[in-house]
Amino acid sequence: MDGTLQERARATRRSLLEAAAGLFAERGYAGTSVNDISARSGRTSGSIYFHYASKEGIALAVVQDRFANWPELAPRYTDEAVPPMDRLVALSYDIAQSLAEDPVTRAGARLWAERDTINVTLPDPFGLWTAAVTRLLAQARVTGDLAAHVRPARAARALVRAFFGLCSLTEAIEGAATVNDRVADWWQLTLPALRVAR
Amino acid sequence: MDGTLQERARATRRSLLEAAAGLFAERGYAGTSVNDISARSGRTSGSIYFHYASKEGIALAVVQDRFANWPELAPRYTDEAVPPMDRLVALSYDIAQSLAEDPVTRAGARLWAERDTINVTLPDPFGLWTAAVTRLLAQARVTGDLAAHVRPARAARALVRAFFGLCSLTEAIEGAATVNDRVADWWQLTLPALRVAR
Repeated sequence: MDGTLQERARATRRSLLEAAAGLFAERGYAGTSVNDISARSGRTSGSIYFHYASKEGIALAVVQDRFANWPELAPRYTDEAVPPMDRLVALSYDIAQSLAEDPVTRAGARLWAERDTINVTLPDPFGLWTAAVTRLLAQARVTGDLAAHVRPARAARALVRAFFGLCSLTEAIEGAATVNDRVADWWQLTLPALRVAR
Repeated sequence: MDGTLQERARATRRSLLEAAAGLFAERGYAGTSVNDISARSGRTSGSIYFHYASKEGIALAVVQDRFANWPELAPRYTDEAVPPMDRLVALSYDIAQSLAEDPVTRAGARLWAERDTINVTLPDPFGLWTAAVTRLLAQARVTGDLAAHVRPARAARALVRAFFGLCSLTEAIEGAATVNDRVADWWQLTLPALRVAR
């Protein structure tokens, strides 16, 4: 393929992925057919099978594109000018917003919740978050901001799971508009145990 | 109906509910048919339709039976001989164990997670937990054990959602055997903000 063809293929894959993500987020995996994706993207179903092989293949691509990888968040949490604990809090609000508003992230979360009904192994989406949080807590230890009894890897595991549960249940019960407030309530209950008292 | 018939009807309803719960917990709502429930319970599908009207009806009954109501937990958290914050922690371990081990509770949690695919409105299962936690925190305020900045209703909402997320994700990622340990890690990160420093 020459450059133009590669670019065109990439644009096609992207438009298929975004159309599928919108449908998965709204209707779930079982409620979305290859024909629906074709209709929404304006591409043929042959194009879907060519680029993603199956409905399972496009679901896997949606989960990997954002929910399990967070490509856009990396710059934010590596900025060493900001204290690590502040970066952790900022990161959580970014993720909460993405879970509430970004269709590809939302679709990834919904597909992961429906994983038992999808005939493909989806990646554990929390490994990467947990590694990132562990790193930030370890940096906070170095800068003297982490309370003595906190063990970074254990704490990160509990924080990530509790945080994701908070965001997804808040959205389910109250809607996306209140997620930010509930995350603030949760940090009030959590930061005192993490921070060294000054 | 005379007494014996009523008792027999109750026993039939119970055995249908437990057979359905076992199947819903293992295979999910879509993966369970009325015929499957009939085969597992050893009752006719006519009996299922007579007692629960539909597969939706029996799913609703499963959610209401335990996951959304916690009938067995009430005595534990009203024992005033135990300090309210200790009751809160004990309650959380009871619920975590029930979510990990009791088939009817597990089925309720799974059906709630799959609620978008079930054609009936399931009750919000967190209202009752949140009210119970609010009451315990308010009692801890009275006994002087609750930190000054904590507002019981707001804190209860965040605690219940974070806790449920922690339990269900831990089970999904690591299996039921580690849930207790992760709840302990989580309380270490949460109790310091709730308790008055002594």
